[in-house]
Amino acid sequence: MISFPPALLNGYRNFMGGRYQDQRDRYRVLAEQGQKPNTLVVACCDSRAAPEMIFDSIPGELFVVRNVANMVPPYEPDGQYHSTSAALEFAVQALRVQDIIVMGHGRCGGIRAALDPNAEPLSPGDFIGKWMNLVAPAAEQIQGNANMTPGERQTALERISIRNSIANLRTFPCVKILEERGKLRIHGAWFDISNGELWLMDPKTQDFSRLDVEAAA
Amino acid sequence: MISFPPALLNGYRNFMGGRYQDQRDRYRVLAEQGQKPNTLVVACCDSRAAPEMIFDSIPGELFVVRNVANMVPPYEPDGQYHSTSAALEFAVQALRVQDIIVMGHGRCGGIRAALDPNAEPLSPGDFIGKWMNLVAPAAEQIQGNANMTPGERQTALERISIRNSIANLRTFPCVKILEERGKLRIHGAWFDISNGELWLMDPKTQDFSRLDVEAAA
Amino acid sequence: MISFPPALLNGYRNFMGGRYQDQRDRYRVLAEQGQKPNTLVVACCDSRAAPEMIFDSIPGELFVVRNVANMVPPYEPDGQYHSTSAALEFAVQALRVQDIIVMGHGRCGGIRAALDPNAEPLSPGDFIGKWMNLVAPAAEQIQGNANMTPGERQTALERISIRNSIANLRTFPCVKILEERGKLRIHGAWFDISNGELWLMDPKTQDFSRLDVEAAA
Amino acid sequence: MISFPPALLNGYRNFMGGRYQDQRDRYRVLAEQGQKPNTLVVACCDSRAAPEMIFDSIPGELFVVRNVANMVPPYEPDGQYHSTSAALEFAVQALRVQDIIVMGHGRCGGIRAALDPNAEPLSPGDFIGKWMNLVAPAAEQIQGNANMTPGERQTALERISIRNSIANLRTFPCVKILEERGKLRIHGAWFDISNGELWLMDPKTQDFSRLDVEAAA
Repeated sequence: MISFPPALLNGYRNFMGGRYQDQRDRYRVLAEQGQKPNTLVVACCDSRAAPEMIFDSIPGELFVVRNVANMVPPYEPDGQYHSTSAALEFAVQALRVQDIIVMGHGRCGGIRAALDPNAEPLSPGDFIGKWMNLVAPAAEQIQGNANMTPGERQTALERISIRNSIANLRTFPCVKILEERGKLRIHGAWFDISNGELWLMDPKTQDFSRLDVEAAA
Repeated sequence: MISFPPALLNGYRNFMGGRYQDQRDRYRVLAEQGQKPNTLVVACCDSRAAPEMIFDSIPGELFVVRNVANMVPPYEPDGQYHSTSAALEFAVQALRVQDIIVMGHGRCGGIRAALDPNAEPLSPGDFIGKWMNLVAPAAEQIQGNANMTPGERQTALERISIRNSIANLRTFPCVKILEERGKLRIHGAWFDISNGELWLMDPKTQDFSRLDVEAAA
Repeated sequence: MISFPPALLNGYRNFMGGRYQDQRDRYRVLAEQGQKPNTLVVACCDSRAAPEMIFDSIPGELFVVRNVANMVPPYEPDGQYHSTSAALEFAVQALRVQDIIVMGHGRCGGIRAALDPNAEPLSPGDFIGKWMNLVAPAAEQIQGNANMTPGERQTALERISIRNSIANLRTFPCVKILEERGKLRIHGAWFDISNGELWLMDPKTQDFSRLDVEAAA
Repeated sequence: MISFPPALLNGYRNFMGGRYQDQRDRYRVLAEQGQKPNTLVVACCDSRAAPEMIFDSIPGELFVVRNVANMVPPYEPDGQYHSTSAALEFAVQALRVQDIIVMGHGRCGGIRAALDPNAEPLSPGDFIGKWMNLVAPAAEQIQGNANMTPGERQTALERISIRNSIANLRTFPCVKILEERGKLRIHGAWFDISNGELWLMDPKTQDFSRLDVEAAA
């Protein structure tokens, strides 16, 4: 007896009866010819921020890495397992994506943990603690700013972290070179779960501003 | 000027005009009360195998880690950044998910790379090569079996890798303990991109068998 | 007193009262004019995998060799009795069949015996042991792969054995020549006893894929 | 593209929509628990004489060896491949069948070949010629009897061959011992393709007589 979650079995049935039917030929071609996504999205594991939903994407469109707080570590060619770096390398070098989107979101649990001065390890391995060290210096500075509200500190660090990941992206030689040659574009985005707003980062000023859906149409 | 990919801007407009409208209240509640997903899915970055599509899931339902070849490394409490282990820890300890699904798929590029005896590093860092070392012994053994077709070797390793990740999951003390107490269930699944079939792993035999959508109804 | 099995006597009565009535004229013509089957099926003796059932065939349609594990030995013109080679020769040269199907199935006891490292001879003659030597090298290799489940090893060898038999078929000069001239086609098939699925071998890749009954309609 | 014979594809569809539906549970149980046939049938490859049709049998009922002219060679523990002996050994020793039926039929092409004084090898390997050597002495004697019609000579040799195979069966130590202990019964049967009659051999006199379906009811 396989105790697969019933809600997911129902969902799969809906998929097979609905979306799969619409995309049957596309799936077959994607299987035969391989995937050719144009875009790599680095997104958060958060259950409320799936890029495929937010961008209403079709199969084969987005190559998606998801880790806690949508982070990219710096280039560390050291022989260790690097999940995110491996995905990045595969997307850029093997799939030759043209766009990389680092996509954060509001109310991020990982960022909240990084900002919590009393956070205790979730387990003896303290994997979240170590992972969030990637933004520790920025988190510490924001933490100390009592003039900002907790909500402001959270949003600020979410955006700082996106910029941080973009800076780390550029420590990868292949990314740096391809971007300089105009073969690769890097974008920052931030999704507001509470109201569905998408905020895009201006590549020059690095400010985030709300996308005006009507105006962009 | 923000050069965000136009196809994604279109997709976002569709989302805002469609799905977001349907789920507006749900998003608001999810923002206010936080996410409470029951299920962690460890999935591949592949653009053809997004769990949210395959399970037709709603916002807040699935906490999703995505890395190349949907792998879980073994428990290594060593002070390094461990993206997947951090997500696992967060899902199990902070979100208290009840089900973990390791979800592989056919035609996986990472598995293909692991099986290619002539594979060369994609970049000097060779991140994919190192990452796929997680299944290197099994890959080497399958590679040597010339009686199997390339397609059979690929499918075999995709499934071996799922079992390997499930075994690694159980090296995490929190997973092991909770599973033993009946608080956490671990599942293996494999999605066939070419025809939409979902194959589930029998927890006893560890064999995969195709889900009969009609029979499961 | 003839102690013929009563269940078979009952079955024969059903046949005479049913199917034979429907096919009475056909049987008479087949007796007078001789059989002209288009297809040779090499099938297993297994009681669950009779080709006439699976293909719902009519009298005169299939010329059927059945041995343990549906195997074809290589061409050995050595003066010994060769049951399967004789049937093959008769089908190809005397009956001029146009199609040869090597038809394996799941849960094959012969294949299981070939994979059992502790298998002991069933009798001092060890006929099964010798017969299964036809797939011994492949069996040994698969046996050594502890990463595959027993079920996966079994299925893998069942399919390898079909390909092996097809390769052996082509060592018969008459088969080789007729196939090259387009007068004879060779097919691999695998029947899943547990759910009735029929898997067909792609002649190019030699992979097996499930026949979609609806799509093939 | 798989060029599987369309007639067989149609037949398989009929099977899946008909008989398989009726026997679905039986197939599943047979897969899970293994086959347990009570009867081994040694039958001819002839397309007009499938035992499952003639005995209207259900899946799992008959373990069936089929070779040209439904013959059993004598016990020869010599290290060669012996297809029929292997099947016999498996049926008797592993499956522990209780009945063995050697089932011949009228208009048998193998018997006809054995009786043809001008028969030439069908191929340089002459596999049929060698295989039919199993009844060569009897065939030669009948051939010389010009007082019998060709039809009578054919029927006579078909029945002699059945008795010959039954005698060969008893050269297998396991068969001989089990039959002597009353654990195994051996039967001769002959099917008349032209009119559907089944003739059974009297174990004492070794004569064949037509089964009276009404009387046997």
